[in-house]
Amino acid sequence: MKIVLIGSGNVATHLGPALIKAGHDLIQIVGRTETNTALLARKLNCAYTIAPSKISDKAEIYIIAIRDQAIEKYAKFIPSKAKLVLHTSGTVSMNALAASGIPFGVLYPIQSFSIRRKIGFSKVPLCLEANGPHAHKRLTKLATSLSNNVHWISHEHRKIIHLAAVFANNFSNHLFVLAEELLKKKGMSFDLLRPLIDETASKVQKYSPSEMQTGPAKRGDSQTIEKHFALLKNKPHISKVYDILTKSIQDHDGPLL
Amino acid sequence: MKIVLIGSGNVATHLGPALIKAGHDLIQIVGRTETNTALLARKLNCAYTIAPSKISDKAEIYIIAIRDQAIEKYAKFIPSKAKLVLHTSGTVSMNALAASGIPFGVLYPIQSFSIRRKIGFSKVPLCLEANGPHAHKRLTKLATSLSNNVHWISHEHRKIIHLAAVFANNFSNHLFVLAEELLKKKGMSFDLLRPLIDETASKVQKYSPSEMQTGPAKRGDSQTIEKHFALLKNKPHISKVYDILTKSIQDHDGPLL
Repeated sequence: MKIVLIGSGNVATHLGPALIKAGHDLIQIVGRTETNTALLARKLNCAYTIAPSKISDKAEIYIIAIRDQAIEKYAKFIPSKAKLVLHTSGTVSMNALAASGIPFGVLYPIQSFSIRRKIGFSKVPLCLEANGPHAHKRLTKLATSLSNNVHWISHEHRKIIHLAAVFANNFSNHLFVLAEELLKKKGMSFDLLRPLIDETASKVQKYSPSEMQTGPAKRGDSQTIEKHFALLKNKPHISKVYDILTKSIQDHDGPLL
Repeated sequence: MKIVLIGSGNVATHLGPALIKAGHDLIQIVGRTETNTALLARKLNCAYTIAPSKISDKAEIYIIAIRDQAIEKYAKFIPSKAKLVLHTSGTVSMNALAASGIPFGVLYPIQSFSIRRKIGFSKVPLCLEANGPHAHKRLTKLATSLSNNVHWISHEHRKIIHLAAVFANNFSNHLFVLAEELLKKKGMSFDLLRPLIDETASKVQKYSPSEMQTGPAKRGDSQTIEKHFALLKNKPHISKVYDILTKSIQDHDGPLL
């Protein structure tokens, strides 16, 4: 299918190659800044523009993969003879695309994309939503060409997934940041924790995280918890995080102190 | 080397097979309960006892892999002609073993062991400490037979590693629990987040987590943060965790709200 991709950030940078790999004809990249957009267009060997008014009218599908706040604005520039317009946001309603006047929907990939890392798109869960049978049909064809893991998800549910993903990805990464900081302050390398983090994630690929919970909070080991607070006494900021998460584990499934 | 392993929990269950695989002669398992101890001894094809007074005096090395509070008690039962006694705790001083009257030290594996999952020991970082040249020499030989990743670490530093590991493993697993809970309440499967968690851990195998931080808190996206608080309004417990971690990310390296 002929596709125009609007965006040059993390999502677009990963979606672009995935579209080409799936055999689609990516005819144009639309970006905000000359440098990023030209770079991505060259990598994908296709045309580009940074002027919304110059969006090509030759495509069947338009994918808007940009920050939430700008989606509605770009929807207005989608050519009226197009067959489908999509956004890729975890939080925005598909109705933000209604102004386009054409069939619309959502293709939200549950993944954390970084410019630096390549990701095999075929296993990324895709959350889909469509405003009617025309959008439904084309979106099904597009999504199944990209991934084996597609789900029809309402806006209400998609918002919950996005929130849960913040816990699973953004917040857990921040805990790694705090752990790295504790080690670095004493001149130790984060390498010491890398196998542990790898195993922590591997465990929950098969089991439920609730079955895999271990540690002083879970087993009600108040002596160790007190020792940890003592180590953190000059770091009130990290101590606060320790406190809340310890209490949260105990409220959930551990014995109370 | 001839070894007696004291313990039948998570650490002992993983250390036992690793010792045998490394070519050591595991002559006895010492446990607290008949059932667990007999089970592990059968799996490892060696003798066992649950009576500390019946600990074999035929070994060169005694490894005490039990809960912190009981280490000192078992140290008193180590035969006086033994060459080395070790514990495997991240928090306890090696001096808890002084009562044994023989060379002593620490072998603390930085890993989260679960009975259910096998772990290749060869990449597990081992933190070592020894009370003198005799312990140092034997511990080096033992540790390098088990892993390619050994580090001499003082008690002060080992305690920091243990604390950092609580953040990297126990606390991040708890965030996965909260994420699973959010999904399940709406009838959705944790499968939706598994590829994301896998990628979150894979990213920090190569890069620093501080470079990999993304999400609404990091980019100062207060609109999305407000939407998330609205979704959590009937879950004050999870909302509290969201609040503290969002603030912690922003205090660290994001713009303030």
